[in-house]
Amino acid sequence: MSETRADQDKKTRPSVEFKTPNGTLIAIGGRENKGDDPKEDETNQHNLNFVKNEILERFVKELPGKDSLIVVIPTASSLPVEQGNTYKKVFANLGAKNVEVLDIRSREDSCQEEYMAVIKKAAGLLFTGGDQLRLTAIFGGTEVMRLIKERYYKENLVIAGTSAGAAAMSTQMIYQGMSTGGFIKGAVSITAGLELLNDAAIDTHFIKRGRMVRMAQMIATNPTFLGIGLEEDTGIVVKKGKELEVIGSGLVVIVDGRGSTATNIYEVEEGVPVTIRDLKVHLLGKGDTYTMENF
Amino acid sequence: MSETRADQDKKTRPSVEFKTPNGTLIAIGGRENKGDDPKEDETNQHNLNFVKNEILERFVKELPGKDSLIVVIPTASSLPVEQGNTYKKVFANLGAKNVEVLDIRSREDSCQEEYMAVIKKAAGLLFTGGDQLRLTAIFGGTEVMRLIKERYYKENLVIAGTSAGAAAMSTQMIYQGMSTGGFIKGAVSITAGLELLNDAAIDTHFIKRGRMVRMAQMIATNPTFLGIGLEEDTGIVVKKGKELEVIGSGLVVIVDGRGSTATNIYEVEEGVPVTIRDLKVHLLGKGDTYTMENF
Repeated sequence: MSETRADQDKKTRPSVEFKTPNGTLIAIGGRENKGDDPKEDETNQHNLNFVKNEILERFVKELPGKDSLIVVIPTASSLPVEQGNTYKKVFANLGAKNVEVLDIRSREDSCQEEYMAVIKKAAGLLFTGGDQLRLTAIFGGTEVMRLIKERYYKENLVIAGTSAGAAAMSTQMIYQGMSTGGFIKGAVSITAGLELLNDAAIDTHFIKRGRMVRMAQMIATNPTFLGIGLEEDTGIVVKKGKELEVIGSGLVVIVDGRGSTATNIYEVEEGVPVTIRDLKVHLLGKGDTYTMENF
Repeated sequence: MSETRADQDKKTRPSVEFKTPNGTLIAIGGRENKGDDPKEDETNQHNLNFVKNEILERFVKELPGKDSLIVVIPTASSLPVEQGNTYKKVFANLGAKNVEVLDIRSREDSCQEEYMAVIKKAAGLLFTGGDQLRLTAIFGGTEVMRLIKERYYKENLVIAGTSAGAAAMSTQMIYQGMSTGGFIKGAVSITAGLELLNDAAIDTHFIKRGRMVRMAQMIATNPTFLGIGLEEDTGIVVKKGKELEVIGSGLVVIVDGRGSTATNIYEVEEGVPVTIRDLKVHLLGKGDTYTMENF
């Protein structure tokens, strides 16, 4: 019998197993609660959806096995020691005492055997906040990133990232852009993220810092990517690479430009405000779900 | 011959002449340029759509006749004298020297014969910024407001409003609401505006102050109203009560919730974040047009 087209496809395409991760992603919009009471001037003082430690507790609960190893990666931060200690303390309060901090500071650094060995044992990784450009510039195309992705797809590795750590997870990554000036062509800088979440563009501190419009500009450049705007103390738990569940006290803003009908972005020069029509927007809260369409 | 259904309708409905205003509205998102250079730290320093005096010059151009009377109404402001003087100076620079300032401070004040006489002669009105609640609380249901509306519908009166003056123009008016906390049910206060623009809800300083989410909450309460978010130094010129043209250096964000599919706003208690799915959003720039559907 001759080989069918389907047979040929099976050989050339990556297997379905590879396309659908077994692991879990948790992307957090920054400033996730770490056990403190909300201060008087904070939004969450009167927010009935606020629950202390909710997000980090969920991360711990998602870890497979008992006394699982959590690896904190403060590479994005300019205060890696402080960040490491903060998370060690919070996790200890949540009963998770098996925590290592892997302060990778450079590309060379990243592939040390001892670091690779720690990543191999980890049940969960947490990328802290800081500057997302440090994350992509240091981890992009390294052996350690390849190992992380392999374990995320093949095993049930849980990968969390907050603020910069969340922004770096998606395919498209905004690394600069005045929130207020983000409507002018050229005012938003985009590069590829670490691509743990495909077909998406994550932005953080989204409501607090008014980032809707810089997101719209990014989407205008290529509406393939679903915009996911995460408010502070708010996140998404992603299963199978596309099933999103909202956690935390705030909202997740989904910006879908796939049906957009017109933009001036390829016609105007840098310095002109970018327009776009027919974005679809959803505001989702705790417990809401959303399934991404993969392309 | 018996009376047809159409004949009956003609008698009971308001006439088309009354439903379609002959006048022009200009709603401005605040901080319209008054002839100064943009400062170094301002968005407009590198914005190619920025033109000095653009918006106020357009207001002057829209006025019918020559040497037409402009009436500045600084009622919203707590510094009415300063506001009045500022606009007098700017209009003089633009060649419009026939300007009166009508500082109406109370409801009683509003219906003085001399004020009514000035409004009767005006070719254009400009409501300054300040607190929009002062505008609705003082002008709502007064004789002077009735006169303004009559002249707006029957004649070609031009009515401009900036910041509070623009927010008060629409049917729905937000008068309070933390931009960042605006996602929690109860955090946004709404009342009826002066209803010069029907079926709409105008918000101002929209991108600068990150007001997308408080707009979404207002729309969730009643998606009839088209959300119109005006950035600073940006506005809309409205003809026939529904034909919008964008002017100025920034963007206008149109938020259309008429096709929205789900919200939790009637199910959750105050203090819980408000969700909504399937908002349609357009970002429009200078020269772009949009025709409102009237209900």
